[in-house]
Amino acid sequence: MQNLDKNDYLEALISSITDSYIEQPSFLPNKGIVIEITELLRKLIFPGYFDKEDTDYMYLRYYVGSLLIEVRGKLQKQICRALLHETATICSDDAEALSEKITVDFLKKIPELREILLTDVDATLDGDPAARNKHEIIFAYPGIFAIGTYRIAHELHLLGVPLIPRIMTEYAHSVTGIDIHPGARIGHHFFIDHGTGVVIGETTEIGNFVKIYQGVTLGAISTRGGQSLYGKKRHPTLEDEVTVYSSTSILGGETIIGRGTVIGSNAFLTKSVSSDVRVSIKSPELSFKDLKQREQDETSG
Amino acid sequence: MQNLDKNDYLEALISSITDSYIEQPSFLPNKGIVIEITELLRKLIFPGYFDKEDTDYMYLRYYVGSLLIEVRGKLQKQICRALLHETATICSDDAEALSEKITVDFLKKIPELREILLTDVDATLDGDPAARNKHEIIFAYPGIFAIGTYRIAHELHLLGVPLIPRIMTEYAHSVTGIDIHPGARIGHHFFIDHGTGVVIGETTEIGNFVKIYQGVTLGAISTRGGQSLYGKKRHPTLEDEVTVYSSTSILGGETIIGRGTVIGSNAFLTKSVSSDVRVSIKSPELSFKDLKQREQDETSG
Amino acid sequence: MQNLDKNDYLEALISSITDSYIEQPSFLPNKGIVIEITELLRKLIFPGYFDKEDTDYMYLRYYVGSLLIEVRGKLQKQICRALLHETATICSDDAEALSEKITVDFLKKIPELREILLTDVDATLDGDPAARNKHEIIFAYPGIFAIGTYRIAHELHLLGVPLIPRIMTEYAHSVTGIDIHPGARIGHHFFIDHGTGVVIGETTEIGNFVKIYQGVTLGAISTRGGQSLYGKKRHPTLEDEVTVYSSTSILGGETIIGRGTVIGSNAFLTKSVSSDVRVSIKSPELSFKDLKQREQDETSG
Repeated sequence: MQNLDKNDYLEALISSITDSYIEQPSFLPNKGIVIEITELLRKLIFPGYFDKEDTDYMYLRYYVGSLLIEVRGKLQKQICRALLHETATICSDDAEALSEKITVDFLKKIPELREILLTDVDATLDGDPAARNKHEIIFAYPGIFAIGTYRIAHELHLLGVPLIPRIMTEYAHSVTGIDIHPGARIGHHFFIDHGTGVVIGETTEIGNFVKIYQGVTLGAISTRGGQSLYGKKRHPTLEDEVTVYSSTSILGGETIIGRGTVIGSNAFLTKSVSSDVRVSIKSPELSFKDLKQREQDETSG
Repeated sequence: MQNLDKNDYLEALISSITDSYIEQPSFLPNKGIVIEITELLRKLIFPGYFDKEDTDYMYLRYYVGSLLIEVRGKLQKQICRALLHETATICSDDAEALSEKITVDFLKKIPELREILLTDVDATLDGDPAARNKHEIIFAYPGIFAIGTYRIAHELHLLGVPLIPRIMTEYAHSVTGIDIHPGARIGHHFFIDHGTGVVIGETTEIGNFVKIYQGVTLGAISTRGGQSLYGKKRHPTLEDEVTVYSSTSILGGETIIGRGTVIGSNAFLTKSVSSDVRVSIKSPELSFKDLKQREQDETSG
Repeated sequence: MQNLDKNDYLEALISSITDSYIEQPSFLPNKGIVIEITELLRKLIFPGYFDKEDTDYMYLRYYVGSLLIEVRGKLQKQICRALLHETATICSDDAEALSEKITVDFLKKIPELREILLTDVDATLDGDPAARNKHEIIFAYPGIFAIGTYRIAHELHLLGVPLIPRIMTEYAHSVTGIDIHPGARIGHHFFIDHGTGVVIGETTEIGNFVKIYQGVTLGAISTRGGQSLYGKKRHPTLEDEVTVYSSTSILGGETIIGRGTVIGSNAFLTKSVSSDVRVSIKSPELSFKDLKQREQDETSG
């Protein structure tokens, strides 16, 4: 009897979950596989750094070749599912042809991606006195993980792939605490130090040789408009050689930080700043209370 | 000989670690399995989004059924261990009966959990101009991951389960950078954007249609009292339709933010604010130095 | 034909990636295995908390012994690779002898590491009114995860191991959002609450019974000097019993916070503070706008 009762509530549960599931589209990319693809691409860009087995040099060509073919197959299938999900009208054959083309176009970009990511590694070594060598940076630095994943996702974004780029950058966000939207445009020699809490919005534009520290937000002034704001430039522009120190927020689509300008910590900017300026906040007044004294008062009271 | 020496230090090490281990209770939940359970529940709430294989519609009922039965078995066992750990007095049979009852009561809540979590998805789509569709949000948005895990953990917390709810929310904290205590009370249509650095304390109360941005702390004024403060309301109350922008801290158990009020970025509040107010800080004065000029001075000096 | 074309672009890709790979050193530690080692060490320090199977007491000695022998083998191999990578001159035999010695010296420190980490657990229980018991803290608290990993990495850093310590602390950074450089020096009874966004720089010195909250940076004033600053004390010193509340930045190698001093939230300090002082910022003025009123104006306009 009791068993039957149990089945009753289970049956009811299963039905209510299954029914509520009908509205879901029949095609969706698979998050787990998109993350696998991201890791495979990181291995391709820095072979030997992220593999569980030691890399045997004699076979490197075959190793790289097998990684490429694995990525190609998985990426093409996920792109196809993403296209079919986004545009209900597209027929399956067109989606397959298109995803094959996009996949090949993307794979051809890998050497370029590797080249620009190496400029980010150089910028990190130049920028961080605690960095011992490039290997430490490639292995361990969250900035390189987040920027590398962003550069991969941005290429797919430019090729018109839906859903997958954002899944990739949010994966990097969860690993590093650095949230870069795939739509942002970022130049070479980009350096993010520590990085936890960094937010770089969809329509942000960043030049070359820019440095950013933990807790910096490049954001929108207000999102009260919601979906009506989609596509509008809502996030700032940083020209070449700009430095933004920790916990500073720079907001607004018309806010431009001029070439070579340095913004200090904890600033809150919603207006443009010209080139070659050092902006710092007049830190708020501090009050000092003698704790020893106070305790004496309390006891003597 | 050398081998013997080695064994010596190993034996000593093993003893010192084993001995120091005696004080540990014989029953503890298993963190790895609690995390598995959390992921299984996320699959049940959004089937098809988080599974490695593609979901075949014909078999969806069986798929959901098998997930439910797997969760039931694992959850019941972990709850039993948590109960036995917490209350040494309880006998094993009572613990098993109680954990079966709690597990069934919890599973029956899943459709409700799914319903309220879908209101959070709606709020996210309304609130973020960069969001393309609900699927992107369910796949990728850390706010939905953290809120969903909190809503699961909060139910178990209400059912009196020790240890497990906090392990679940700290798992979400490590994935998203969003730290929501299972004891907090949060209404429907809750939206957290970006989220890294958000802290929502144990006795926080949040109404419906509330929006919160990265780096917001809803915290206690001081924790110097330590354990003596347990149970006291130490964290603030946000009424319906409140918005709190990035890096703002709202502290104190008697601090109430009135309905519809909007708090700007970087504020630090320890007092209540009435309804329908826009609070913003007079940003600290900025100082501007011309770097070009300065460099000339330095070289000309 | 089409297949041949495909092979063409694949061949070209494989070559360009393989060629660009030549400059990489032949010896590198393996990040995945270094992370496994970190997890094995956490199991050794808190056996029973992090294992997927239930721990059988009768066999605890054998369990601990097998963990120790697994760690020893893996750690010794990774240290050897790290040494060979760092110092091209060292011969392979010397590297193996040295890494065996370092490994044994490190393993002998485990009971000490366990002891000091238990003082951190005590400090956390004292400091957090929401904490129910030590088990919850060991299971779930990110502060304990980050401090424990730092204490392991710091020992290896003191023993002169390159690369591996930083890979370990950056692993903890990705799990917790707490970024502690292995070079920092930290006393016992250290408590970090919530922790997301905490940054503790390479040359920081922290005394005993220190408390730190989310978003606190103990950093350098400027890193414009880049590599030229390596080795210089660039980060602050916190004496015993100092408390630093959330989102405060304390910068500079000559900045000393005196014994027992408490620094409030959102402060920005680049100068020393004497002992037993309560420092708090005069929070910036707030402006209040009545939204209801404004809406009426708008509609009545």
